[in-house]
Amino acid sequence: MAKNSPQKAAISPTRAEDYAQWYQEVVRAADLAETSPVRGCMVIKPWGYAIWENIQRVLDGMFKATGHKNAYFPLFIPKSFLEKEAEHVEGFAKECAVVTHHRLVAGKDGGLIPDPEAELDEPLIVRPTSETIIGAAFAQWVQSYRDLPLLINQWANVVRWELRTRLFLRTAEFLWQEGHTAHASEAEAREETLRMLDVYSTFAQDFMAMPVVRGPKTPSERFPGAVDTYAIEAMMQDRKALQAGTSHYLGQNFAHSSGIKFLDAEGQQKFAFTTSWGVSTRLVGGLIMTHADDDGLVLPPRLAPAHAVIWPVFRGDDTRAAVLETIERLGKSLRATRYDDRPVQIETDLRDMGGGDKQWEWIKKGIPLRIEIGPRDVAAGTAMVARRDRSPKDRESIPLAELPARLPALLDEIQASLFERALAVRSENTRAIDQRAEFDAFFTPKNAQKPELHAGFALSHWCGDPKCEAQIKDALKVTIRCIPSHGIDRCAAAERLNEAGACIVCGQPSERRVVFAKSY
Amino acid sequence: MAKNSPQKAAISPTRAEDYAQWYQEVVRAADLAETSPVRGCMVIKPWGYAIWENIQRVLDGMFKATGHKNAYFPLFIPKSFLEKEAEHVEGFAKECAVVTHHRLVAGKDGGLIPDPEAELDEPLIVRPTSETIIGAAFAQWVQSYRDLPLLINQWANVVRWELRTRLFLRTAEFLWQEGHTAHASEAEAREETLRMLDVYSTFAQDFMAMPVVRGPKTPSERFPGAVDTYAIEAMMQDRKALQAGTSHYLGQNFAHSSGIKFLDAEGQQKFAFTTSWGVSTRLVGGLIMTHADDDGLVLPPRLAPAHAVIWPVFRGDDTRAAVLETIERLGKSLRATRYDDRPVQIETDLRDMGGGDKQWEWIKKGIPLRIEIGPRDVAAGTAMVARRDRSPKDRESIPLAELPARLPALLDEIQASLFERALAVRSENTRAIDQRAEFDAFFTPKNAQKPELHAGFALSHWCGDPKCEAQIKDALKVTIRCIPSHGIDRCAAAERLNEAGACIVCGQPSERRVVFAKSY
Repeated sequence: MAKNSPQKAAISPTRAEDYAQWYQEVVRAADLAETSPVRGCMVIKPWGYAIWENIQRVLDGMFKATGHKNAYFPLFIPKSFLEKEAEHVEGFAKECAVVTHHRLVAGKDGGLIPDPEAELDEPLIVRPTSETIIGAAFAQWVQSYRDLPLLINQWANVVRWELRTRLFLRTAEFLWQEGHTAHASEAEAREETLRMLDVYSTFAQDFMAMPVVRGPKTPSERFPGAVDTYAIEAMMQDRKALQAGTSHYLGQNFAHSSGIKFLDAEGQQKFAFTTSWGVSTRLVGGLIMTHADDDGLVLPPRLAPAHAVIWPVFRGDDTRAAVLETIERLGKSLRATRYDDRPVQIETDLRDMGGGDKQWEWIKKGIPLRIEIGPRDVAAGTAMVARRDRSPKDRESIPLAELPARLPALLDEIQASLFERALAVRSENTRAIDQRAEFDAFFTPKNAQKPELHAGFALSHWCGDPKCEAQIKDALKVTIRCIPSHGIDRCAAAERLNEAGACIVCGQPSERRVVFAKSY
Repeated sequence: MAKNSPQKAAISPTRAEDYAQWYQEVVRAADLAETSPVRGCMVIKPWGYAIWENIQRVLDGMFKATGHKNAYFPLFIPKSFLEKEAEHVEGFAKECAVVTHHRLVAGKDGGLIPDPEAELDEPLIVRPTSETIIGAAFAQWVQSYRDLPLLINQWANVVRWELRTRLFLRTAEFLWQEGHTAHASEAEAREETLRMLDVYSTFAQDFMAMPVVRGPKTPSERFPGAVDTYAIEAMMQDRKALQAGTSHYLGQNFAHSSGIKFLDAEGQQKFAFTTSWGVSTRLVGGLIMTHADDDGLVLPPRLAPAHAVIWPVFRGDDTRAAVLETIERLGKSLRATRYDDRPVQIETDLRDMGGGDKQWEWIKKGIPLRIEIGPRDVAAGTAMVARRDRSPKDRESIPLAELPARLPALLDEIQASLFERALAVRSENTRAIDQRAEFDAFFTPKNAQKPELHAGFALSHWCGDPKCEAQIKDALKVTIRCIPSHGIDRCAAAERLNEAGACIVCGQPSERRVVFAKSY
């Protein structure tokens, strides 16, 4: 399982050899998650779940800081609720888990069957999203303009029946948060929609170290029932785009279908304006595909379940006690420090196994810092420190007395270097393209043996006609990821975003470029 | 809605008038939760959910401190998994939500119906508990004794179809945590079972301020599939018992049915010994029924969403700015202090409404401290402080400069006084009873008009025969809540717990008393 030769990568196959398989291997080797006996559902293992807990902790703080409160709504949605909003039901009816019975009984062959006597009058849908059930609650909670804005968030599991699944990226059941808000005016609801897009963008860049482009989706890519959908889009290492979070301005569509009405200050009855926004365990997939390398997972320190691991290197029984004592003292002093507003998390690995295997296990788990202490380190009062963002052979001897004070800076450096590296990948693989031939070539795999490695983001012109968009999608499986509203940081090609030009399909005039890419 | 007269209670009906209705009114008046359009499922509103978040935060810390890690397992359980353990399926088949289809399609009358083409080969059960699906994962994770103990916890929603529901206490869907562990020996698994019972007991008493009796359940009250079930039991204000948490020693039952095997140090293959333990949103119901009074909710400070509310009392425009400024300064200085290892949470209520209505709203929400500041307080450099555990009229003027330093002590006093009060209720309503006639009288409502008010806990002898237990249950709807393993704190009657005596039903010898009570 482990590997000691530095020439060969710890993950097989490598990204270049087989990207999809490499991803599965990184997940497996880091012990993040596994498939379950329930089709499409995953088991999130402790190391993977701890990443999600950190994502939750940070986002929850950001939601509360922007005035939102958490609540909880039913798992089940009556079929009639889903039917209230026409586009919404159209979007979700094809992939939902339907509860039809509330009891099992012994069947003729002895096994259990759904009890025909216990069939529900109305089937229940396991929530694929909660606009309709939360809308029903909002309709009761909102009476007057004084009850607005209503700013609610829910952490929950949802189910969208998927047959082709991939751990974290696409699973039938996933964990997420869904924000739902109601406002007295369109302007305020639109402001909220963009505020939460901004929160997602800040979180992705500052915590996940994952650069994102943000902006509105085209009409064809909107959430079912939304007036406008905004997204953050990130480039993965196979150059495909990952939609990492969405924020929807729902106008009065759901307020009409759910009856969310209020009396304004003049005593007039009006329908509220609503929004919804969400991110999911898919973010863990994005984190992996942004930072992991051919040696396995690489964790941004601000979301890492543990910041550093310390292990002993023994050379004979006479120095064993001194090494263990040094490790215990160092662990204690490091745990007493803080990083990013929380206590530093230190793993101490005293398992009886070879140092090489141990090293590679932690490399594959992506822990930011690895600290080794042997008898010579004890004698010199130092520790050997290795960073996950550098080569496994690249180690620095740091005085024990200095380590607690240096730790936060080291972690900040790693966090920054991961972001820089991801920015560089995105910048190198983003190109302004004006000719259809070049566009087609850009999106045609260079190597027919490796159709999974793509070229990146094309910044090209689009006239706004859904037919042109559909033509590109049919021909190349390429979609418009978003219409960038805040540029693309440190990307030369993006300086040409706001140039006028001609649609890449029909040649009609276009005021600015959009982001085309293959996507997850 | 509000009430200003101190003679009358804020909640109508009162506990004495109609206990069940009083409970619903307390929940409604504190804005904790409401029923939903989905039969049996509740909506947990922000103030109620914030209590649950505090419960989660504290328990999660206690689980992690005892070596457990969080993970997440599928919502759905294949029917065949549930069938693996005979007692288990017997216990849950009668009340489960069954998913039979994965798509809706337009029916003949235009509405949607479960698509007959999309019927599942095997129905899926929405988890009522996760022993079987987690067991399947454990069977893969455990190979050698080195993989043990495996200490896992999951925070999740579960569904047990219930027709007669009551907010928080009994709902079809509820939120909970379920711990699942696997061990190499019976002794270690039994130790874990009791350790977690101890964690629950500490949590209930030290954080919820809810006294509990703990010990094993009788065989007839065991979890389906368990070898031994232990519980914490609390006395509610209607003198009924609430089972507030359970910890199960599962022996090798689920290890056999799920195939959780390991090679021991001698290379022998053995089945693991497992445990499971859980508490749920039912705890919020227990908290309400332990502390709330005829004026509404009363929150123990260690779990309160906010510790104090501050509002202004205006008397003329000339002093308005000074009052607001004082409030802002006080809020800032209070928020800078810590209580119970977290920042003090302060609400500032500047809504434009009468002071009486405002006061009663916060009383009904149960906030531990209410702080009023008017022009006279500003002039004197003081604040009027009222405690929720005292009469609404009982207020103390405290110098503003002293308040931040005094706040933690005030909160500690409230926490302690709530526990003392609950202890006294339990002690006063617990009686050692040796005669069947007295036992029957004890459990017969004194007032036929108010069958919901009960007498309390009877400490009586039981020979150990399930028939005697069943006879009492059939005759009086009274059950054995547990066989107390740690006595009952500060309860005179409990000094006689370990006396020998004769079974209250058959007169056969019994070595010690058990706790009989009506229960939720």
